[in-house]
Amino acid sequence: MSGSNALFIPGPTNVPQAVRAAMDIPQEDQRAPDFPRFTLGLFRDLKKVFKTEPGQVFIFPSSGSGGWEAALTNTLSPGDRVLAAAFGQFSQLWVEMCRRLGLEVEVIDAPWGEGAPVETYAERLAADSGHRIKAVLVCHNETATGVTSDVAGVRHALDAAGHPALLFVDGVSSIASIDFRMDEWGVDVAVTGSQKGFMLPTGLGIVAVSPKALAAAAEAKLPRCYFDFTVMARANKDGYFPYTPATTLMRGLRASVDLLLAEGLENVFARHHRLAEGVRRAVAAWGFSLVARHPRWYSDTVSAIRLPEGQDAGAVVRRAYERYGLSLGVGLSQLAGRVFRIGHLGSLNEVMLLGALAGAELALADCGAAVALGSGVAAAQAFWVELPRHAIAAQ
Amino acid sequence: MSGSNALFIPGPTNVPQAVRAAMDIPQEDQRAPDFPRFTLGLFRDLKKVFKTEPGQVFIFPSSGSGGWEAALTNTLSPGDRVLAAAFGQFSQLWVEMCRRLGLEVEVIDAPWGEGAPVETYAERLAADSGHRIKAVLVCHNETATGVTSDVAGVRHALDAAGHPALLFVDGVSSIASIDFRMDEWGVDVAVTGSQKGFMLPTGLGIVAVSPKALAAAAEAKLPRCYFDFTVMARANKDGYFPYTPATTLMRGLRASVDLLLAEGLENVFARHHRLAEGVRRAVAAWGFSLVARHPRWYSDTVSAIRLPEGQDAGAVVRRAYERYGLSLGVGLSQLAGRVFRIGHLGSLNEVMLLGALAGAELALADCGAAVALGSGVAAAQAFWVELPRHAIAAQ
Amino acid sequence: MSGSNALFIPGPTNVPQAVRAAMDIPQEDQRAPDFPRFTLGLFRDLKKVFKTEPGQVFIFPSSGSGGWEAALTNTLSPGDRVLAAAFGQFSQLWVEMCRRLGLEVEVIDAPWGEGAPVETYAERLAADSGHRIKAVLVCHNETATGVTSDVAGVRHALDAAGHPALLFVDGVSSIASIDFRMDEWGVDVAVTGSQKGFMLPTGLGIVAVSPKALAAAAEAKLPRCYFDFTVMARANKDGYFPYTPATTLMRGLRASVDLLLAEGLENVFARHHRLAEGVRRAVAAWGFSLVARHPRWYSDTVSAIRLPEGQDAGAVVRRAYERYGLSLGVGLSQLAGRVFRIGHLGSLNEVMLLGALAGAELALADCGAAVALGSGVAAAQAFWVELPRHAIAAQ
Amino acid sequence: MSGSNALFIPGPTNVPQAVRAAMDIPQEDQRAPDFPRFTLGLFRDLKKVFKTEPGQVFIFPSSGSGGWEAALTNTLSPGDRVLAAAFGQFSQLWVEMCRRLGLEVEVIDAPWGEGAPVETYAERLAADSGHRIKAVLVCHNETATGVTSDVAGVRHALDAAGHPALLFVDGVSSIASIDFRMDEWGVDVAVTGSQKGFMLPTGLGIVAVSPKALAAAAEAKLPRCYFDFTVMARANKDGYFPYTPATTLMRGLRASVDLLLAEGLENVFARHHRLAEGVRRAVAAWGFSLVARHPRWYSDTVSAIRLPEGQDAGAVVRRAYERYGLSLGVGLSQLAGRVFRIGHLGSLNEVMLLGALAGAELALADCGAAVALGSGVAAAQAFWVELPRHAIAAQ
Repeated sequence: MSGSNALFIPGPTNVPQAVRAAMDIPQEDQRAPDFPRFTLGLFRDLKKVFKTEPGQVFIFPSSGSGGWEAALTNTLSPGDRVLAAAFGQFSQLWVEMCRRLGLEVEVIDAPWGEGAPVETYAERLAADSGHRIKAVLVCHNETATGVTSDVAGVRHALDAAGHPALLFVDGVSSIASIDFRMDEWGVDVAVTGSQKGFMLPTGLGIVAVSPKALAAAAEAKLPRCYFDFTVMARANKDGYFPYTPATTLMRGLRASVDLLLAEGLENVFARHHRLAEGVRRAVAAWGFSLVARHPRWYSDTVSAIRLPEGQDAGAVVRRAYERYGLSLGVGLSQLAGRVFRIGHLGSLNEVMLLGALAGAELALADCGAAVALGSGVAAAQAFWVELPRHAIAAQ
Repeated sequence: MSGSNALFIPGPTNVPQAVRAAMDIPQEDQRAPDFPRFTLGLFRDLKKVFKTEPGQVFIFPSSGSGGWEAALTNTLSPGDRVLAAAFGQFSQLWVEMCRRLGLEVEVIDAPWGEGAPVETYAERLAADSGHRIKAVLVCHNETATGVTSDVAGVRHALDAAGHPALLFVDGVSSIASIDFRMDEWGVDVAVTGSQKGFMLPTGLGIVAVSPKALAAAAEAKLPRCYFDFTVMARANKDGYFPYTPATTLMRGLRASVDLLLAEGLENVFARHHRLAEGVRRAVAAWGFSLVARHPRWYSDTVSAIRLPEGQDAGAVVRRAYERYGLSLGVGLSQLAGRVFRIGHLGSLNEVMLLGALAGAELALADCGAAVALGSGVAAAQAFWVELPRHAIAAQ
Repeated sequence: MSGSNALFIPGPTNVPQAVRAAMDIPQEDQRAPDFPRFTLGLFRDLKKVFKTEPGQVFIFPSSGSGGWEAALTNTLSPGDRVLAAAFGQFSQLWVEMCRRLGLEVEVIDAPWGEGAPVETYAERLAADSGHRIKAVLVCHNETATGVTSDVAGVRHALDAAGHPALLFVDGVSSIASIDFRMDEWGVDVAVTGSQKGFMLPTGLGIVAVSPKALAAAAEAKLPRCYFDFTVMARANKDGYFPYTPATTLMRGLRASVDLLLAEGLENVFARHHRLAEGVRRAVAAWGFSLVARHPRWYSDTVSAIRLPEGQDAGAVVRRAYERYGLSLGVGLSQLAGRVFRIGHLGSLNEVMLLGALAGAELALADCGAAVALGSGVAAAQAFWVELPRHAIAAQ
Repeated sequence: MSGSNALFIPGPTNVPQAVRAAMDIPQEDQRAPDFPRFTLGLFRDLKKVFKTEPGQVFIFPSSGSGGWEAALTNTLSPGDRVLAAAFGQFSQLWVEMCRRLGLEVEVIDAPWGEGAPVETYAERLAADSGHRIKAVLVCHNETATGVTSDVAGVRHALDAAGHPALLFVDGVSSIASIDFRMDEWGVDVAVTGSQKGFMLPTGLGIVAVSPKALAAAAEAKLPRCYFDFTVMARANKDGYFPYTPATTLMRGLRASVDLLLAEGLENVFARHHRLAEGVRRAVAAWGFSLVARHPRWYSDTVSAIRLPEGQDAGAVVRRAYERYGLSLGVGLSQLAGRVFRIGHLGSLNEVMLLGALAGAELALADCGAAVALGSGVAAAQAFWVELPRHAIAAQ
């Protein structure tokens, strides 16, 4: 197909030119004398993205799922109880990982489309006077449903209950795109991957760990080796690694962090919000609804869009890809066939997103959906247009 | 600015990934024993793009303007008369080049917005019974006005008059995008550049030359050296060059020709037509008019769009670039400030173009133009949407 | 520093241009309908590199160490006994990983510089009439000492003892460079990484697994999730992955496998042998000895070179890097400061290697080593020169 | 062939990674509002490389040969007399270009292997009391013979004769590699290309022009258009171009100028000298002689090496390329078959060059030349080795 493909899945995201250039390089020696100058600076600046001072950031050659495993195996012992809410495909998968690793999971099942139920977390924690719960898991942004949860609320619940459990956050599709405050929210392990807000290819699990979580490793009995924090920390201290690190991705990460800090994290968040809101206006104009049930949960990185009964969302995604070179996200698990998703995170602007909205309209129309062509585009534009108001009013 | 810039000027055009990859390589020895295997194959396949069998294609490290100069200096002598129509910035510049090189130009001035006036060519040629006119120049696609001319018509005029003049065509913004038939139309020199339909960076002047034009070099007295056909042909015969060729661009050209031939030239032309027509529907929906005065001149590679009185087209283009990262073409010369242009050639598809149309709407609105947001997008979509008609009708 | 750095560590290795190009691409959707066409073909051709037909190849976003962990956790249960030889840094690390994962390791300590002691393996296996040993671990190529072991010999030992233990091979610095025959040698899990013979950046753990090892997963009680074979196999069957795969590296892997198969595996092995032998001639000419104690263990991918007493090998490596832009391998663990290593694997030829040998001579001389400048180069050249012998004799 | 090719021709030269990255980018709009910020800075910094303050630097999409033509056609009229020495292939070609353009050339024929004969220039200029000579041409570095000429000496000859002729210098293989001082030497037009000291692909003719030469354009009657200084200057003043510029190469040029200025021009020259001297030591060790007849003419960018009678230099170059992936320069014109050349300019260091010298030894030996393997390498190393002298003495 002529032209470039348009990538609007909720990760991997588009890689900025500067990041591509930083990675398309000859290989280097990870034991070179000047390698630590690079890595130590990277560790330091990554902490700014997580908004942590005492925390330590680890970079694993892995996907974000590896980061999930790192969080659990470094801090817990077989049979330990964890509290976790399941309200979408990814929060559910983390729960399953806990089980597979031999942890006892107290699951809070919540409707897909709602965020993590802070009140229920609070009740369960308050009820756990014996502090059997060793860790609390929250999925900050559920990529399957386009829902952002209130991590600070869960922290408040822990504090209100005077509960000492560790707080783990899946920030795979939030960190570096949506406001995240590790220290302020008292997060003990924050997990993300390279292929979302960091605008890199898949291949790095990036995990920020609080001193409290690091200390927990001493007692944690789950077997671990590849994802071991202590061994990693020992080597990282001097800027090196216990095994060969993925240096090209790390060079890209350096470029990505530079871009994020140059734009300013708050500006990055504001841009994501502005772009996301445009998408939501488009969805409303189409007459569709979001999976997210309430604006307070609307995700600024991904929108999961529910099609009317009888409309095959999978066919729309396939049509968009095969005929228009537009990659949209499919509905996952219980949302398969009924939902499609638009990823709107990372390196993105209005023109790119308008192309995607327009392309989605074409695919929808081709599949027989009753969308008015251009309607979603116009709604997003109306939100984004800036000057002068009189002209817009003239519509 | 976040995200990638959207390039919708009428050249340089977007470079496909395969072409970028073909050029991002270590340098090579242009005198290597296996270099001719590469170059001779490239010369051969380039002829297919020009649709010529007896012609010879030369590749100069230059822009398309260098190709103009090559056409003239290799075939004409000081004081020779040429017949040329001026109906836009680029056809005008070629006329001026003729004058600067010491040729006598019989200029047919035509309104900007019309194509080359075939009837006037015919009259002048018929009137030139003494065959003082040595060459006839036609701009196939006037990039400034978005007008495509009838080259075959000019050939008919030459034939009808039994006139032996050479026929030179500026195909910079047409060849490899719009139907062009060197042999069938009896073109003696066809000039193009790398940065349009060939989807490469600027840097190659690509010139196809008929045996008749090559033979004319023997008598042509205009001084030339860098752009000399004869010297080039002598070296090219064995696959080499008289001076260092731009090998990286040539490697990219190989990839580009492969893409063109794989898609099929007729499919490439059809795609350009389909995309261009969508743009024209958008322009109509906006309530604007094209500079091109009649559908028979509509260019499938660039649309020049006239804004209403009082609207500053330059401000719109600037706004699109600075706020939305969208590069549109400015109006040139007498069209400056009144016209903006959308390039729709090269590596392109619907989603990319819809993003550009939507972005143009934003910039227009921001600048106070009375365009209904989404209206152009919807019109293009309605033209491009395919299945099923009932859904579209539901609008 | 001007010019390019010369990378002669035993991995990461130099990435061929075609592989770089294959990876420097826009991101793609790992759930796209045509993604399986790519992945299924890759899985199939990877099997050729491992020389297995019934085996299955898994690709993890990880380093080779992750592959080690995958081999163990998918097939064994806590307290299971494994038999492993430690004769260098990497074979030692795998032993330590076993212990950390809760396995009981019967370690055969062998001198650094010798290969895996096949006879001792045979004795231990013969003695284990109760078949308490569940898995036998062999490091095919010990990167720290430049020693290649006899994997087929260990298989013979297993067979001779009629022992049912699984056979795991660390082929990180051997596979795709040195002869390796999974099926013929009865290997159950073969582990490698992307950054050695596959000539890619670090980031993929590539693991080939026999049906017998896959079946062992049903009984294996070690917790695992990220590196789980069964879950991976279930998704891979249709060409997809249980979590986001490292698609750019996989595109590079496709290009790398294409290069390997085009050259022919036997030719790849022969080239490595020829280049390695040249390096060994150079070492001899310098008057140094290899850590490898006998030619039958000489590694064709890395040479570990022992410096005379009083010579600081670390200083030589640092000098080579800082003054000459040449990356050599340091001595590891008990060899630190006494040994430097030359990696000679992957995308390599004589001219590159001669530059490295000459650069090593400069660094050695700068550090006061009594090497005759040019002597190692001349010895390697004498081995590599081909025609005509009379000219060489003239030396 | 495995591994990377080694490029040691006297241009194109190796492109540094930073320059490659700067060019592997999406296309851009050469009429963008912020384009002049880029171009004006580039023009300014290019002047530093030429060491001129009042001069103006033009960038043409062309090769260096286009720059030659620009120098002549912008300043001279048909029949004008120029004084030029021919002492190699390239100085000869410039003379022929003069003739082809209709100039009258007073040629000083000098032996190939000597530099421009300053004394003869002085005599001819002194004899030209009528100042019929309008321009004096000097080839600063004759790439065919590896000879550097005394441009300052020619300036002295002009001054001594009180001669007003313009001074044109072919600096294609010298500028940015060898000391060049436009203002101090009173050079009026200095011509170079992108693919030598600027370490870029071929495709830019880079021409620095003095105010005196610019003023000469007013009277110069040679036809010109593509290479016209005046039209270019008018557009360049605001940072734009009269026709589409080769923006990707210009982005690379920006990176290249940054590298040159960061290293420091004097350091760049010193590095070239140090590397070149090593090559010359190697040539001496091989028992061969340079084409350059006297050390005062030795070129620091290219060495032309004469083989003994009966030795086919072309076969050596072919062998080096086909068997060892090493590109050496062939002998040109009257030196064909008797000479091969090693380019040692641009992005280069000792290890790269030692690989090339060693590879040349292999090819020479394969072709039956009586070179002692390693001898040239050792001689170059002995010149380059630094510390400690006692170790080297121990040889």
